[in-house]
Amino acid sequence: MTDTRKFYLDDLHPGLRFTTAEHAVDAAQIVEFARQWDPQPFHLDAEAARRTFFQGLAASGWHTAAITMRLLVTSGLPLADGIIGAGGELSWPKPTRAGDVLRVESEVLEVAPSRSRPDRGMVQMKCETMNQHGDVVQRFLPKLVVFRAPEAPPVPPR
Amino acid sequence: MTDTRKFYLDDLHPGLRFTTAEHAVDAAQIVEFARQWDPQPFHLDAEAARRTFFQGLAASGWHTAAITMRLLVTSGLPLADGIIGAGGELSWPKPTRAGDVLRVESEVLEVAPSRSRPDRGMVQMKCETMNQHGDVVQRFLPKLVVFRAPEAPPVPPR
Repeated sequence: MTDTRKFYLDDLHPGLRFTTAEHAVDAAQIVEFARQWDPQPFHLDAEAARRTFFQGLAASGWHTAAITMRLLVTSGLPLADGIIGAGGELSWPKPTRAGDVLRVESEVLEVAPSRSRPDRGMVQMKCETMNQHGDVVQRFLPKLVVFRAPEAPPVPPR
Repeated sequence: MTDTRKFYLDDLHPGLRFTTAEHAVDAAQIVEFARQWDPQPFHLDAEAARRTFFQGLAASGWHTAAITMRLLVTSGLPLADGIIGAGGELSWPKPTRAGDVLRVESEVLEVAPSRSRPDRGMVQMKCETMNQHGDVVQRFLPKLVVFRAPEAPPVPPR
C-alpha cells in the first residue's frame, strides 16, 4: 500500500482487498521470539526440531500472528481509528520457516453496522498470511470494530 | 502445576483441567510488546489511549496470546511431546490492562484419535486466560496434535 488513504466503516464493502508489505523471517528471529514466548524445542533449536512433528525449525504460530499484526498495522489495513479485533477463527495450515518471506492478503467479507451504536460497526475480514511460495501459513477471520467518519460540523446559516 | 507428570494422548479425557502459574503485566511490558508487534496508539501511550475505544492503555490481544502461550508451555499444559496447535477460535472479551495478573485455566473438551495415524490424535481444548478479578481476557479453543506414548519394547520370550 503506497496509498495513504484511511478507511472508515462506510468506505468498506465485501470484496475490498488489501495487501501488506513483506517481511523476511530468519532462524535468529524464530529462536528469539520462541525464547521469550513459546520455549519449545521445535521453535528453539534446528537439531532438536528434526526429531519432532515439525521435522525442522518452525516458528511459533504466535510469532506468525505477531508478524501478521505488524504488517497489517504498518502497511496493510489502513483503518482510520486503528485495527481493533474482538477475535476470530485462527489456523496455521503450515508452519513459518527460516527463509520465508511473508505478506498478508486481506479481504472484507461482511460489514454490519451496529444497531445500538450508530457510530460504529463490526467488519468480518479474512486475513491470509502467505509465504513466498504462495502457501498460507496463517488464516485469520477477525471481527473488527470499525468506526464511521466523524460528522462534519453543521454549516452555519448565512 | 507442581506435578512433573507428562501427558500423552491416552492420559487425556474430557473434563480434565489444568491451571498455570501467574504472570503480572505492567505498562512497560505492554508498550514494549506493542512497539515491536502492534504499534497502535492505544497500546503505546496511556494519554493517547484515553481518547480511543479502549479509554486507556490496553495490551495488544497478541500480547495476551503470547503471555498465555508462555504460561501454558512453562507451567500449565504438560504434554509429553509439546503443545502443537493447529489453530482454533480466539476471542478477547476484555483487554489486558497494566496491573493485571494473568493465569490460564484449561480444560480438555474432546479427544479424537486419528483414524489414519495410530500414533496421534486431535484434542479440542478450552484455554481461558483470566485476570485477578476472574474476568476472561482471552478465550482460545485450540485443536492440538497430541501423540500416544511410545510403545514399550516387546518382552523377550523366556
